[in-house]
Amino acid sequence: MLADELRTPALLVDGDAFARNVATMSAALPGPRLRPHVKAFKSTAIARELATAGHRHLCGATLRELAGLAAAGLGDDLLLANETVDEDHLREVVDGGGRITVAVDSSETVEVAARAGVTEVLIDVDVGMPRCGCRPEDAGGLADAARAAGLEVRGVMGYEGHLMTADPATKTERVAASMALLTAAHAAVGGEVVSGGGTGTYAVNRACTEIQAGSYALMDTSYGATDVPFEQALRLLTTVVSVHRQGGWAVLDGGLKALGMDHGNPTVDGGEVWFCSDEHTTYAPADGSPLPQVGDRVTMVPAHVDPTVAYHERFHVVSGGEVVDVWPIDLRGW
Amino acid sequence: MLADELRTPALLVDGDAFARNVATMSAALPGPRLRPHVKAFKSTAIARELATAGHRHLCGATLRELAGLAAAGLGDDLLLANETVDEDHLREVVDGGGRITVAVDSSETVEVAARAGVTEVLIDVDVGMPRCGCRPEDAGGLADAARAAGLEVRGVMGYEGHLMTADPATKTERVAASMALLTAAHAAVGGEVVSGGGTGTYAVNRACTEIQAGSYALMDTSYGATDVPFEQALRLLTTVVSVHRQGGWAVLDGGLKALGMDHGNPTVDGGEVWFCSDEHTTYAPADGSPLPQVGDRVTMVPAHVDPTVAYHERFHVVSGGEVVDVWPIDLRGW
Repeated sequence: MLADELRTPALLVDGDAFARNVATMSAALPGPRLRPHVKAFKSTAIARELATAGHRHLCGATLRELAGLAAAGLGDDLLLANETVDEDHLREVVDGGGRITVAVDSSETVEVAARAGVTEVLIDVDVGMPRCGCRPEDAGGLADAARAAGLEVRGVMGYEGHLMTADPATKTERVAASMALLTAAHAAVGGEVVSGGGTGTYAVNRACTEIQAGSYALMDTSYGATDVPFEQALRLLTTVVSVHRQGGWAVLDGGLKALGMDHGNPTVDGGEVWFCSDEHTTYAPADGSPLPQVGDRVTMVPAHVDPTVAYHERFHVVSGGEVVDVWPIDLRGW
Repeated sequence: MLADELRTPALLVDGDAFARNVATMSAALPGPRLRPHVKAFKSTAIARELATAGHRHLCGATLRELAGLAAAGLGDDLLLANETVDEDHLREVVDGGGRITVAVDSSETVEVAARAGVTEVLIDVDVGMPRCGCRPEDAGGLADAARAAGLEVRGVMGYEGHLMTADPATKTERVAASMALLTAAHAAVGGEVVSGGGTGTYAVNRACTEIQAGSYALMDTSYGATDVPFEQALRLLTTVVSVHRQGGWAVLDGGLKALGMDHGNPTVDGGEVWFCSDEHTTYAPADGSPLPQVGDRVTMVPAHVDPTVAYHERFHVVSGGEVVDVWPIDLRGW
């Protein structure tokens, strides 16, 4: 089937760009040096591609992601890179099989992990972004509490999310300062694992034994504006459903329910996006380019991959204009 | 089941507020004076509630919405309040049964409708918002073309979306000016239907024979800041998964994949939202209120209902703290 025959809106993955992104990252961080974060793509099919590339230790942000990975035979070493206090759900995931490690940052999350039958945890440390993670100086005590609760502490985790798109001129130094907090916590906690990082810092993060990157596989515009060597592999295919020749605008059949909008509007090659509505994007061709015809296909690049993917049921993998594979987005929801 | 026992993040509908919203709108626009727009809630269960309240003529923005409504026995009079050039998909919907009317604004959409077996159309007219709709002066000619193609032209449609949250002091006047364009087009087109309007203009739109409102049923913060008499009935239930006492923030387990973000951040009662991440919202209590405990439940109000709903699988209808019903969000996707 040709990509241009798909019903729209439809997510397209450039299969060749995806393969190059995977190869570039695998060369930099082979095997378990990378722990791909499945939240970026929510698809066991993509997780399997990355496992085939050597990265069999995976992480997720939700229990559903972990359950789906284990059920798909990808449970060698799964990390919930997030906190949960849902004991019943966590027990379901543990009982579902696979090696399950969870992040903990409080006595409550330690207790829930122990009661749910988890055996291994990482101490999640605040390294400068105001989200989850205990204070570095509390990490050792929390590790003691976890061990007292019968848990094995594999090490520490700390996500420097506030530095993912930092100025390249200062990124290395700022990441080092952030990771010094994690290294200090690790000294107090012990264990073999120091987990953190992401697509924006994978090349400069020297402290982590494993990097939790996921966005690199499909990429998006905010990372594309930085110095990372990955290509845009995800686009939204749309159809022109209306053209206003006098007004100079055209309307595409993909909008707020097909695009994560927290990083702003999508981009249209050769066009300027005016605004998105629920099921539409209104745009104008740039610099005197002609308006399209009703029925033409136009692709957009979402500003933020992760919440874009979560709206869709499948990726269409395209090479040379042909749809060569369909990857279900089967890890959505909670 | 108590609402507080739900897995989170979870969408809650205040069943009593919803019932009051439905009653308020039905009193203002009884029966077919309202054509509820299902894009706002994407649920046949809610559509059935509105049909039971007398509104059996419905509209949608996608073909999947129409197909699902017809399959649920709600196909008395369904309007695709949008343009499509997907002939195969449109034919499937026509063949699926129900009375199907589609909006057209170009020769291309007229031809697709005729080829797909559609029998009835509305001429969609640009009334001031740069999206779909032909110029008012072209409406009569397009109606002639539609009739020449064998289609019955039921009338016109024009959506004054740019005025939904206009200043109340000038809204009536601006809506009247916008609708004057639709009335002029209607004079050239003929037919019995003049369709348009929405939650923000239903009370002041005097030109339309039917109002396409949907957001009023669940409401959201941007409409809540205007003068409409509807109550917030939709909330996102979350759990506190991390608290940073020294930093003064707490982290909720609902974020960018559970909230439509195009209208900005959600709101937390008694709190100030700092930012949302994929699966988290970081906030601080307002004005000296104490931080919550890990495990506490906190509800957020999404800034925009429609793209929020599209992330979720179901609504939990709550009354007196009990979950009294579950409404599948079964009209998602395309």
